[in-house]
Amino acid sequence: MMTPTNHLAQTPAPPYYVAIFSSKRTDGDRGYSSMAVRMEELAKTMPGYLGIESVRDDSGMGITVSYWQTAEDILHWKQNAEHLKAQESGKSTWYSEYAIRVAKVERAYVK
Amino acid sequence: MMTPTNHLAQTPAPPYYVAIFSSKRTDGDRGYSSMAVRMEELAKTMPGYLGIESVRDDSGMGITVSYWQTAEDILHWKQNAEHLKAQESGKSTWYSEYAIRVAKVERAYVK
Repeated sequence: MMTPTNHLAQTPAPPYYVAIFSSKRTDGDRGYSSMAVRMEELAKTMPGYLGIESVRDDSGMGITVSYWQTAEDILHWKQNAEHLKAQESGKSTWYSEYAIRVAKVERAYVK
Repeated sequence: MMTPTNHLAQTPAPPYYVAIFSSKRTDGDRGYSSMAVRMEELAKTMPGYLGIESVRDDSGMGITVSYWQTAEDILHWKQNAEHLKAQESGKSTWYSEYAIRVAKVERAYVK
């Protein structure tokens, strides 16, 4: 259930924006894994994309954090046609629950 | 390596704040698991605490997202004496790399 991204994102100095996607998976893959890979590839081609971090554990709990230059970039990504289709399958099939939060990064510390 | 929290946080309507802690663990427990449990307990007692979501996968990559009423609440939590001690061990022992981002949540969608 891991996504291909398994390292910390390299982001510029704040301010920038973040979309925090927290979710619990239903049982069975049902196309989820290939969609997750594809959505990550697609996000990287979108305007304002800065980076992504994604973790899911064996219980099915996951957090994906994507970083963007502006709030409008996140809205644009949300409205991408292929992404909208994935969101529909997410609601109907892949996630038992989820939350998406859009936030403005004000401070950052990196080791 | 899972933390005790394994469900989505219930947060109020925005605006509120979020601290996003992304990290990679070094090998071996060396006191990490008990600290993680204790820090989550402690965070819940702090002023302005709204909720927490935490995921770590078998590769050692983890994301912990904690929600707070204000940016000052996060600063106060950062400066808690017991938390400062945990931060020191985090730097010296538990994490090969990490990033902390403080952000203001502007919009939220929940299923």
